[in-house]
Amino acid sequence: MTLNVAVAGATGYAGGEILRLLLRHPAYESGALTIGALTGNSNAGQRVGELMPHLPELSDRVIEQTTPEVLAGHDVVFLGLPHGFSAEIGKALPDETVVIDCAADFRLRDAAAWQHYYGSEHAGSWPYGIPEMLGHREALRGATRIAVPGCFPTGATLAALPAVAAGVCEPVLRVVAITGVSGGGKKASVGMLGAETMGSLKAYKTAGTHRHTPEIMQNIAEVTDAPVNVSFTPVLAPLPRGILTTITAPLAQGATKESVRAAYEAAYKDEPFVHLLPEGAQPQTQNVVGSNMCHLQVEVDEGAGVVLMTSAIDNLTKGTGGAAVQCMNLALGYAETDGLPRQGVAP
Amino acid sequence: MTLNVAVAGATGYAGGEILRLLLRHPAYESGALTIGALTGNSNAGQRVGELMPHLPELSDRVIEQTTPEVLAGHDVVFLGLPHGFSAEIGKALPDETVVIDCAADFRLRDAAAWQHYYGSEHAGSWPYGIPEMLGHREALRGATRIAVPGCFPTGATLAALPAVAAGVCEPVLRVVAITGVSGGGKKASVGMLGAETMGSLKAYKTAGTHRHTPEIMQNIAEVTDAPVNVSFTPVLAPLPRGILTTITAPLAQGATKESVRAAYEAAYKDEPFVHLLPEGAQPQTQNVVGSNMCHLQVEVDEGAGVVLMTSAIDNLTKGTGGAAVQCMNLALGYAETDGLPRQGVAP
Amino acid sequence: MTLNVAVAGATGYAGGEILRLLLRHPAYESGALTIGALTGNSNAGQRVGELMPHLPELSDRVIEQTTPEVLAGHDVVFLGLPHGFSAEIGKALPDETVVIDCAADFRLRDAAAWQHYYGSEHAGSWPYGIPEMLGHREALRGATRIAVPGCFPTGATLAALPAVAAGVCEPVLRVVAITGVSGGGKKASVGMLGAETMGSLKAYKTAGTHRHTPEIMQNIAEVTDAPVNVSFTPVLAPLPRGILTTITAPLAQGATKESVRAAYEAAYKDEPFVHLLPEGAQPQTQNVVGSNMCHLQVEVDEGAGVVLMTSAIDNLTKGTGGAAVQCMNLALGYAETDGLPRQGVAP
Amino acid sequence: MTLNVAVAGATGYAGGEILRLLLRHPAYESGALTIGALTGNSNAGQRVGELMPHLPELSDRVIEQTTPEVLAGHDVVFLGLPHGFSAEIGKALPDETVVIDCAADFRLRDAAAWQHYYGSEHAGSWPYGIPEMLGHREALRGATRIAVPGCFPTGATLAALPAVAAGVCEPVLRVVAITGVSGGGKKASVGMLGAETMGSLKAYKTAGTHRHTPEIMQNIAEVTDAPVNVSFTPVLAPLPRGILTTITAPLAQGATKESVRAAYEAAYKDEPFVHLLPEGAQPQTQNVVGSNMCHLQVEVDEGAGVVLMTSAIDNLTKGTGGAAVQCMNLALGYAETDGLPRQGVAP
Repeated sequence: MTLNVAVAGATGYAGGEILRLLLRHPAYESGALTIGALTGNSNAGQRVGELMPHLPELSDRVIEQTTPEVLAGHDVVFLGLPHGFSAEIGKALPDETVVIDCAADFRLRDAAAWQHYYGSEHAGSWPYGIPEMLGHREALRGATRIAVPGCFPTGATLAALPAVAAGVCEPVLRVVAITGVSGGGKKASVGMLGAETMGSLKAYKTAGTHRHTPEIMQNIAEVTDAPVNVSFTPVLAPLPRGILTTITAPLAQGATKESVRAAYEAAYKDEPFVHLLPEGAQPQTQNVVGSNMCHLQVEVDEGAGVVLMTSAIDNLTKGTGGAAVQCMNLALGYAETDGLPRQGVAP
Repeated sequence: MTLNVAVAGATGYAGGEILRLLLRHPAYESGALTIGALTGNSNAGQRVGELMPHLPELSDRVIEQTTPEVLAGHDVVFLGLPHGFSAEIGKALPDETVVIDCAADFRLRDAAAWQHYYGSEHAGSWPYGIPEMLGHREALRGATRIAVPGCFPTGATLAALPAVAAGVCEPVLRVVAITGVSGGGKKASVGMLGAETMGSLKAYKTAGTHRHTPEIMQNIAEVTDAPVNVSFTPVLAPLPRGILTTITAPLAQGATKESVRAAYEAAYKDEPFVHLLPEGAQPQTQNVVGSNMCHLQVEVDEGAGVVLMTSAIDNLTKGTGGAAVQCMNLALGYAETDGLPRQGVAP
Repeated sequence: MTLNVAVAGATGYAGGEILRLLLRHPAYESGALTIGALTGNSNAGQRVGELMPHLPELSDRVIEQTTPEVLAGHDVVFLGLPHGFSAEIGKALPDETVVIDCAADFRLRDAAAWQHYYGSEHAGSWPYGIPEMLGHREALRGATRIAVPGCFPTGATLAALPAVAAGVCEPVLRVVAITGVSGGGKKASVGMLGAETMGSLKAYKTAGTHRHTPEIMQNIAEVTDAPVNVSFTPVLAPLPRGILTTITAPLAQGATKESVRAAYEAAYKDEPFVHLLPEGAQPQTQNVVGSNMCHLQVEVDEGAGVVLMTSAIDNLTKGTGGAAVQCMNLALGYAETDGLPRQGVAP
Repeated sequence: MTLNVAVAGATGYAGGEILRLLLRHPAYESGALTIGALTGNSNAGQRVGELMPHLPELSDRVIEQTTPEVLAGHDVVFLGLPHGFSAEIGKALPDETVVIDCAADFRLRDAAAWQHYYGSEHAGSWPYGIPEMLGHREALRGATRIAVPGCFPTGATLAALPAVAAGVCEPVLRVVAITGVSGGGKKASVGMLGAETMGSLKAYKTAGTHRHTPEIMQNIAEVTDAPVNVSFTPVLAPLPRGILTTITAPLAQGATKESVRAAYEAAYKDEPFVHLLPEGAQPQTQNVVGSNMCHLQVEVDEGAGVVLMTSAIDNLTKGTGGAAVQCMNLALGYAETDGLPRQGVAP
C-alpha cells in the first residue's frame, strides 16, 4: 500500500521545507509514500518550478486551491496555513486522515490564553509535537491529529525543560531568542525586505506580546508545580535560517554545576535530535542549518546565581518542517529519524 | 594654534573609525586640528591606502611603529591598542598630552576585579568616557587622560541606568547583547572568518566570563545602593556593525509603565546622542550605523513583572571611535557634538 | 537669504539618503539652507520618526502629499518619485526652482530609446548629473533642471569612459554589475524579502532588458565615434548598499598596460570623488559605503586581449542621493564637495 | 564486504562537505561503506566535535595526522589537501585504492599551463570529474584516480559547454563568477574575516591570474577546434555558499534563440544534476545550497549579439564535495545519484 501525502499551503516556507524533507524520506524513495496534492491560494494554478525552484523534482506539479475536497482522499495532510484557516481546513478532514498542523490553532490547551493572544475562539487542542517532552512521544505514536509546535517554543522548551523538571532552576525564565528572517514567512512587507533586515538587528513583539509566550509557559508548566514566569524577547537577525535561544533562570537552592549538567545528560542521552555540546562549546546556528537537530549548552553563572541555557535550531526544520515530519514518522509507525538529517549544512 | 593628533593602532577598527570621524571634524576642516602620526606594529612601513582604502585622503600616509617617541609631540593621542600595551604607552606619554585610551586598562576602578578578569596588575583608572552618566561629563571636560568605555558596557549602561537610578527597577539585570563581527577586531582567526560567521549566531564568553561584565556592574553601582547583580550574555551575529542590547530587570514595587518611561525622558531629554524612541517602536541597529547615536526603548512587561530595556548602538562609533571623539571634544573644549553624525547610514 | 529645500518622495531610499546628507551639509549647518516640505503618498500624515528612524533630527516632521502646491515656494526640489509621476511633478514646478530628479524621465536624449524601454511618451532630457563626464560639470553649474543618473550607469560610466575616450579599448563593453538590495527600493515584494535575498545571488533583467542599458550606451557614445555595443547583466547580491561593476572591452590596437592606466590617471587626477586605486588593489564596496566616492581599477588581461575595468560605488550615495547633492552644489554655486563624505563606513 | 573510506584534510570545508554527504549515503546507511581515518595536520589529536560540530555522529572521532601510513588500508581516500601536498600523498597510495583528489594537482593536462599558473612541476593528470562533459562519465566509471574539478570551472563549464559544442556561440567567453566566502577555505586571514567580507563585494585574482582560468579553457577546448579565449573575473560576495556564473559569448552566425536553447535541452535532458530553468527564470544560488545541482539559464541578447549563459551551484557541493561523491559513485559502481541531494536548502 502506498500512502498519499498532501501539503496544504505548500508554497510557504513551512510547506517547502516539508517537501524538501519528504523528497529524501526513505518511504518516498521506496515508493511507499507519494506526494499528492500541493495547494496554495493566490498561487493556485502556478507550477512549483516557478515558486520553489529549489525542488526540481516537483517543478512541473501544479498548485491547487486549498479546499477540503482537494485534500480529501489523502492519508496524510500537512497544513502550512495561517491560523484560523488552518483550523477550518483541519476540522473538515476525515477522522482517519493524519492531519499535521503547522499553525497555532491546536497548540494551546487553555482557551483563555488562546483568546487573549489570538482574539478568536479557541479551536481546541491536539497532541503536541515535541516528542522529546515527557509523555509526548507516546501520545504522538499513531495519532491522527497533531499540532506542530511554534519555532520559538521548540528552542526554548528543549533548552529549559530538563533544568526545570529536575528542579535545578526556578521556573522564572528570561528568554531572548534571536531568529533568522524566514521566521517572518513568505509574504511581502516593507519591514522584512532585504534592505531593512540585512545588516540590522531589532527586537519585536516584546514585553509579553509575542504569541509564542503562552506556548512556552504551557510547556514549562508541564514539569513543575511552581508558578511559571516567562519574559520573552524575540529578536530579528540577518540570517535566512536559525534560532539561537538564550535563557537565564535562578539557580535553585542546592543545585550545582554538576547537578545541572547531569539533568541534561539524563534527559537527552537517547534523543536522536538533541545534542548536548561538550562543556565549553556554545551552540552555533550554522551547525544545525537544514537539519532536525537542536544543539544545546547549559552553564552555571555563579556570580549572578543563574543557570544559562542556550540552544540552536533551524527554525524551518526542527522548528517547523522537520518537527512535522518527525511527528508523521511517529504517527505512521516509521522510524522516528527517517528522512531527517542530523548533519547541518555548515558553513 | 593647530592641535596635532596622533592615532596609535591606527590600522585597527577603532583607529580607523576615529580617523573616519576626524576627517569630517570641523576643527580638521578648518585647519585647527591636524592628523599627525599614525602607528601600527606589524603594519609599520605600509601605506594607509593599502590598509584602509576607505580613507582616501590619507592613502599616501605611512604607518609608523608604535613607540612613545613617535607619539611624542602630539597634543592628542588616541590609543587603539591591545590592553597592557596600551597602558604601557599611555603611561609613557607626557602629562600634558591628552591621551584617549580605547583599551580596557583604565576603565575599572576595582583592582581586584581587574586582576580577576584580566589576570595582570591593575594599571589604575582614568576618567570614564560615558558623558551621559551623572557627573561624568564634568569630569571629562579638560581631562588629559580618558578611558573610552567598552562597546557592550556603553549599550547596556545607557539602556539600564535611568531605570536603576530612578529606582523603578531592581539592579538585577539579565543582559543579552548581540553584536556585529567588527567587535572581534581586525585580526586573523578561523572563528571570525566570513564563512564561520555569516548565516550564523552564537553566544560566547558566557556565564560571567566576558571582561565587560565588571564594567557594566561598576556603571550600574554608581547609581544605586542596592547590590548589583548582572548576568551578561554576548551573542555574535552576522552583521558588520551594531550592538542590540536587551535587558530585563524586576519592576520595582510601586513603579508603573508611566514612571518608568518618565525616568528615561528625564534622563535623556537634553542628550544629543541618546534618542528615546516613541512608544511602540523598537531600536534597530541599521538606524545608528556610522552614527554616534544610541537609540533606546523601555517597556514594562506586566505579566512577567519586568522592565524591558533595549538599545542600539554602532559598536565602532558610539561604542568606540565616536565615544573617543566625543571625549576629545570635551577634553579640548570643542562643542560636544562636533564631527559626530546623528544620522545613521540606513538602510 | 536662506534657501528652502523640499524632498518629494522623501520616505524612499533616495529621499532618505538625500536627507541624511543634507543634515550634515555646511549650508544646512550654517542656516543658509533649510529643509522644507517632505512628501510621500501612502505615507502622508505619518511622522518621519516612524518611517526613517535613522534621521532623529527630523523625527517630528510630518510627511505631506506630493503635489505641486506643497512643493511650490521652495528654492530646490529633489524628486525621489517613480518615473512618469516624477516627470509630471517636475514639469509643474516653476522654471526658477532648481529641480533635481532622481527618476529616469529626463536622462535619455533619444525618444525612441525611451519609448522602447519605458513604453511611454518621452518627457524630454535635462542636464545629466555625472559632473565627471566631459563637459557636464559646466552644464550643471547654475542649472535649474537636472537628471540624476541611474546607479548602474554611474558605476559603469565612470569605469569605462576614460578607456573608451582615450581609444585604448573598443566600445564593446561586457558589463556585469552586482548590486546591493537597496537598489530594489522600499516597496514590499516577495522576491526582495530578506529570506529570498540573504545568502543568495541572482541575475535579473538580463540580456538587454534592464532600463539602464540605453543610458550606459548614451554615455559611452559621447566619447567615441565607433559603434557602441553594450551587454549588461545586473546581479542582485546580499548586501544593503553597494555596486561592484566589472567591465571587459577589447584592448585597442597599439594600446598597452601603460597607456591604459595613463588614460585613467589623466581623466581623474583632479576629481574629488573618483579614486583610482594603486596597481594591484581592487575596489571593494565596503570602502565606499555612505560616501560619494567611486573607487576604480583598470587592468589589461593580455591573454584574453581585454581591458578589465572595475568600480565600486554606494548605489544610494554616488549612485543616487550623493550625486543629487553634488548636482545641487553645482547648481547653487556651493563647493562641489560640500556635505559629501569621501570616507566610507568600513568595515 | 564493507568498503572503508578515509578523508584526508577532513577538517577543511571540502572534507567536511564530503563527510556530510557520506553520512546520508545509502551505502553508509546500509553498512556497505564505513568512514575510516579522518586526518588533518594542525588539528591532529582534536575531536571532530570541537572542529565540525555540524557532524554530531562523528563527534567523538579523533583527527589523525595526514600520512600515507594512516591512509593505507582504505578502499577509498578523499584528498582535501593543499595542492602539492595532495599530489605527494596521492602518489604514495596503492594503485588499487580509489583516490579522489579535491586539489588542483591532477586537473590540467598541459604541463606548461600548470607550470605557468602554479610555478611548480606538473604532477600529471587524472580522469577529470565532470561526468556531464562528453566522454568523461565513461572514463570515471571504475577509475582509481580522479581529479575533482575546481568550483569555478564547474559552474563555467556546465554553463558554456553546450553552446560552444553546438557551435551556436564562439568560444570567446567573458566569465564573471561571483562566489560565497567558503571558497576561500578554512584558514585564518584578515581579508576573509566576517567584518571584511559581510556587506561587501570585490573582484580578486583578476585579469587572467586566477588559477582556474586554464582549467576553464581546457574544458572548453575539448568541444571546439576554434581558438579558445577566456577572460575570467572572480568576485567575492557576502554569502557562505554558492557561485553564480555569468558568461557572455558572441552569438555564432546563423544561430538563433531557438537553436541556442535546443543545444542546452539536448545536452542536459538526461542529466540528474543539471536543471535548465524554464525560459524567463534566472538561477538563484539559494536554490542549490547543500545540493549537488547546477541550475542554468541561457538567453540571446540580440542587441549586443551575444549569448548570455548563467549558472548557479553550491561551491562546496557540486563545486567540490558533491562532485567528489558523484565521482566515487561512478568509480565504485553505485548509482550516480546516491547520497546526493537534488533539493536546495532554500530559503
